[in-house]
Amino acid sequence: MATNIQCIGVLTSGGDAPGMNAAIRAVTRTAIANGIIVKGIYRGYRGLITNEITSLETQSVSNIIQRGGTILKTARCDEFRTPEGRRQAHDVIVEHGIEALVVIGGDGSLHGARDFAQEHNFPIIGLPGTIDNDLSGTDLTIGYDTALNTIMECVDKIRDTASSHERLFFVEVMGRDAGFLALNGALATGSEAAIIPEISLEKDQLAEMIEQGFRKSKNSSIVLVAESEVTGGAMGVAERVKKEYPQFDVRVSILGHLQRGGSPSAQDRILATRMGEAAIEALLEGQRNVMVGLQNDELVLVPFAKAIKKDKPIDRHLLDVLRIVSR
Amino acid sequence: MATNIQCIGVLTSGGDAPGMNAAIRAVTRTAIANGIIVKGIYRGYRGLITNEITSLETQSVSNIIQRGGTILKTARCDEFRTPEGRRQAHDVIVEHGIEALVVIGGDGSLHGARDFAQEHNFPIIGLPGTIDNDLSGTDLTIGYDTALNTIMECVDKIRDTASSHERLFFVEVMGRDAGFLALNGALATGSEAAIIPEISLEKDQLAEMIEQGFRKSKNSSIVLVAESEVTGGAMGVAERVKKEYPQFDVRVSILGHLQRGGSPSAQDRILATRMGEAAIEALLEGQRNVMVGLQNDELVLVPFAKAIKKDKPIDRHLLDVLRIVSR
Amino acid sequence: MATNIQCIGVLTSGGDAPGMNAAIRAVTRTAIANGIIVKGIYRGYRGLITNEITSLETQSVSNIIQRGGTILKTARCDEFRTPEGRRQAHDVIVEHGIEALVVIGGDGSLHGARDFAQEHNFPIIGLPGTIDNDLSGTDLTIGYDTALNTIMECVDKIRDTASSHERLFFVEVMGRDAGFLALNGALATGSEAAIIPEISLEKDQLAEMIEQGFRKSKNSSIVLVAESEVTGGAMGVAERVKKEYPQFDVRVSILGHLQRGGSPSAQDRILATRMGEAAIEALLEGQRNVMVGLQNDELVLVPFAKAIKKDKPIDRHLLDVLRIVSR
Amino acid sequence: MATNIQCIGVLTSGGDAPGMNAAIRAVTRTAIANGIIVKGIYRGYRGLITNEITSLETQSVSNIIQRGGTILKTARCDEFRTPEGRRQAHDVIVEHGIEALVVIGGDGSLHGARDFAQEHNFPIIGLPGTIDNDLSGTDLTIGYDTALNTIMECVDKIRDTASSHERLFFVEVMGRDAGFLALNGALATGSEAAIIPEISLEKDQLAEMIEQGFRKSKNSSIVLVAESEVTGGAMGVAERVKKEYPQFDVRVSILGHLQRGGSPSAQDRILATRMGEAAIEALLEGQRNVMVGLQNDELVLVPFAKAIKKDKPIDRHLLDVLRIVSR
Repeated sequence: MATNIQCIGVLTSGGDAPGMNAAIRAVTRTAIANGIIVKGIYRGYRGLITNEITSLETQSVSNIIQRGGTILKTARCDEFRTPEGRRQAHDVIVEHGIEALVVIGGDGSLHGARDFAQEHNFPIIGLPGTIDNDLSGTDLTIGYDTALNTIMECVDKIRDTASSHERLFFVEVMGRDAGFLALNGALATGSEAAIIPEISLEKDQLAEMIEQGFRKSKNSSIVLVAESEVTGGAMGVAERVKKEYPQFDVRVSILGHLQRGGSPSAQDRILATRMGEAAIEALLEGQRNVMVGLQNDELVLVPFAKAIKKDKPIDRHLLDVLRIVSR
Repeated sequence: MATNIQCIGVLTSGGDAPGMNAAIRAVTRTAIANGIIVKGIYRGYRGLITNEITSLETQSVSNIIQRGGTILKTARCDEFRTPEGRRQAHDVIVEHGIEALVVIGGDGSLHGARDFAQEHNFPIIGLPGTIDNDLSGTDLTIGYDTALNTIMECVDKIRDTASSHERLFFVEVMGRDAGFLALNGALATGSEAAIIPEISLEKDQLAEMIEQGFRKSKNSSIVLVAESEVTGGAMGVAERVKKEYPQFDVRVSILGHLQRGGSPSAQDRILATRMGEAAIEALLEGQRNVMVGLQNDELVLVPFAKAIKKDKPIDRHLLDVLRIVSR
Repeated sequence: MATNIQCIGVLTSGGDAPGMNAAIRAVTRTAIANGIIVKGIYRGYRGLITNEITSLETQSVSNIIQRGGTILKTARCDEFRTPEGRRQAHDVIVEHGIEALVVIGGDGSLHGARDFAQEHNFPIIGLPGTIDNDLSGTDLTIGYDTALNTIMECVDKIRDTASSHERLFFVEVMGRDAGFLALNGALATGSEAAIIPEISLEKDQLAEMIEQGFRKSKNSSIVLVAESEVTGGAMGVAERVKKEYPQFDVRVSILGHLQRGGSPSAQDRILATRMGEAAIEALLEGQRNVMVGLQNDELVLVPFAKAIKKDKPIDRHLLDVLRIVSR
Repeated sequence: MATNIQCIGVLTSGGDAPGMNAAIRAVTRTAIANGIIVKGIYRGYRGLITNEITSLETQSVSNIIQRGGTILKTARCDEFRTPEGRRQAHDVIVEHGIEALVVIGGDGSLHGARDFAQEHNFPIIGLPGTIDNDLSGTDLTIGYDTALNTIMECVDKIRDTASSHERLFFVEVMGRDAGFLALNGALATGSEAAIIPEISLEKDQLAEMIEQGFRKSKNSSIVLVAESEVTGGAMGVAERVKKEYPQFDVRVSILGHLQRGGSPSAQDRILATRMGEAAIEALLEGQRNVMVGLQNDELVLVPFAKAIKKDKPIDRHLLDVLRIVSR
């Protein structure tokens, strides 16, 4: 069923991710090329309630493909978690003549999209924008590749000083629920190990590392640790090591918010551009309440329920590869 | 059929590509972890003839994952294109007790591998190492992602000056036979068009661009042009434009050899590491005369004949996406 | 003599240089902090004739310190080289109530500033904005440090491929009249030699290099060549080498316009910020027709005539250092 | 008085700094060019006691100019702080025939050099290698410019997310005793303020910022905070803000050890190369017990006592510039 949409809104929500601007650009220009008016909504769902909405023209999105962050800003919005808040948002949407939404964000943002779409029978297309890569139904999320490269560049620098001083570094990276950044970051940097949430509840990764003869030599080592309440993150792991293996010269580095920023990588810009174009194509074909995903290098449409299912598996063979190549 | 290989050789051949060192590291360490002796062969196939071979230990490949180029050097080798040359190479291989080879390189390198393997019934595993991404049977080659990011960073810089001066730039990138770098580079940089070899013989891409209203406004524009004898590359296209559209303020930039260098991206380091490990696994399983490829994010084994077939299609839909989003 | 200026104009002229935006930002905000209205003039002197002028507020220059290029654009302007053109410009200036100008640019731009100031008895402060570092009266120009780092990063990449293939590369950098980029670029990259304009007319730098035993070994080498009509630049030098020393495997790379772009380095952002603030301080103190320069890390005021004198010497001892450390 | 030195030792000591390798390279090659044998001492002064010393040839320092860290490693050495330890070190030095030392390091390293030189009447030349820029007698130290650029790149990334979320970030940088990195880092990144040790004891910088109307608008802001026991660093300042100004959405980022690493900037490579060459020239001229410094872009020799005096002033006018341009 093809539809006849004349005006859409676009917003970014949740934690910002590099490539969001490239997605906004592609959504805006593809819509305009199809004769659709585009409204930019500021600060995620909050802008739907506080009525912070502006028109986006072709020129509005010039020269933003290379910029980190999001020109539409982002914010958390507690009101939107309530039916009353979503009703307010719907009123504003109707007032502006917006007939469909493109929502760029992570898990929480797609939850909100699903609820809103159901309650108000409103067409929404989601784009996966999060550095954590923890959305199901898509091999890659917008921002993940850039964050991985940012982590790599930071750890490359830390290695300079680690190997000059022959120290053991625990470096904390983002990914509270998913170890993609920590595990692939460790592979990319020649780190000796990764401590990731998928394994944290199963067994004591640190004890196992030590048993397997980790750091027999006195050379420097780097271990990437996903932030975690189970392990205590890099700080928690380092405290244990200091107590149990006092011979090691231990240091901690927490990469923190800089992982979210920076000019997006080529892959993220291309992914965001392709997904942004596909979002409008999907709307024109009458699709609604799906997330655009990438599977086997093809763009697919994934129901919101599937995308937010939190069951995206990590490739455990990579843990073996890491152990073998870091000896 | 599992085999009992005790000594392998590893070499890099053809144009160097970022990630080759990460592949050498993974091949070496995985082999050693399996009790296999590793010999590094210098300057590609030439080192097999001139007998430039060294032992590689775990420490030999420390701290190289982040470096561009190849610690084993690379070179062209005309002798190896003859049966006589390959016979000499085989003698040297036998002398060193090398029982299998891992060859990291592009199209020409895999041709050589196939011929040698057939003539001497010798086990070889190939790894796709080339920035051009023009090998069939694999979605990605080692070095492509880094080259794409290098192009992107250069074009981002050129755009600063292009938009300050409101000029039209033709930027030449590598890819004589394949437009992956030019097309995806254009998408990643917000360039207005890409002129690629896959289309060059079909139609006049430049004329079409102009007819479709390219550069109606006086703003700056950037067009990525794959090096080509058909179009004459960036210089050839620019000459035509200067003649036919003298109103444009045209500049040319040829990115050249710097596209081959630089510290590899996270994706290339991870890909090279995974492929290096898989090459040894394949040998241990008795595989031979195949290239390790990546399909749908799974590692697969591809017969040499398939890999060098030069029929890897470019996604033509991306040309439409480029036209839509660059308006 | 303190003055009572109420409105100034700011423009960027000539080739763009990284840090121009940081200078515009500092000029604008310092002026506003002193109660002065700021007008941004587009496309250098041309905007004074075509009347492309806009008001700049504090917010207009937000988030530009990190961007290459110039938000005010730049252009050449032949009319402004004539008294008639400058008269037109003066009319526009009077019309807008502009009482003083800050001009950010290189040699040609300061020539124009001097002529205009003299003819119309008009207060102008110049800021040295050029990657070539060829202005007298200042140790550093805005953009030079960034261009030097850009050259360094490119040559670092080229070295990867040069040493993998054991080739001799001639890399052409900007600096038609001044060898700062070529000589310091060679020092920073471990290149073996630099061919610079200051020496080109004195002697045959290439012949001397070869006589002194250059490239006795077969390792890779990189030579930085300033663009030049005397030597023919990298292409000219390479042609001679190919003829006279056919045993070398020679390649050429011309870095071109990407040297002008990119996010400015810390040094350029700080220099531009300090100079921008000092320009307004100078105007408030009644200074006019001087360029802000940096001497011994102190900001000084330099008469235009001195700045454009083209007699800035290069430190020839650095040529000796280069020869010694590159052996 | 010219001397006739036949063998020198070179070592890096204290915290590592980018550019140390460039200095080692220049020292080694200049010495060899003058017929002097070079011994590399591992792990700073400790290697003098544990006898970890190797010969350095021209090839030993190939391809290291672009690498962070130090190929000679570095370490703290408590024994060397005692006369007994320094006696042991002297015995090892005599055993190796080392007649002079080049010591690359910071404040503590030069203290050690001074004591050793006095007790054993031994010629030492120091090079200022520290990212903190806190040595007197030199405008710049090796590593400072790279660290400043690293901080800038990190803060540029943090700004992306800060402005997307409209948050107030306190970013902690190195410089316990000297605010060069914090103040110039703030200038380079368009941060709103810097809290530096030079001012910490005089007055309450945070209270003053707030009184002066800091962050009246709700936009994002970034404040750079030098690590400090007086202020408690970024964490200490943020805690105070959360208590006293609960309306701000505050975040903290501690850049930590990555500030020490990374490929050195052009300026640091050139500075290190010039200083390394000058160190050998100084030895050949009979100089001893001086540090090579840079003053007004000229290399000078500074007595150790002057260099370690800890009285290098920060330019307080820059605090005013920061306040004006960040409004």
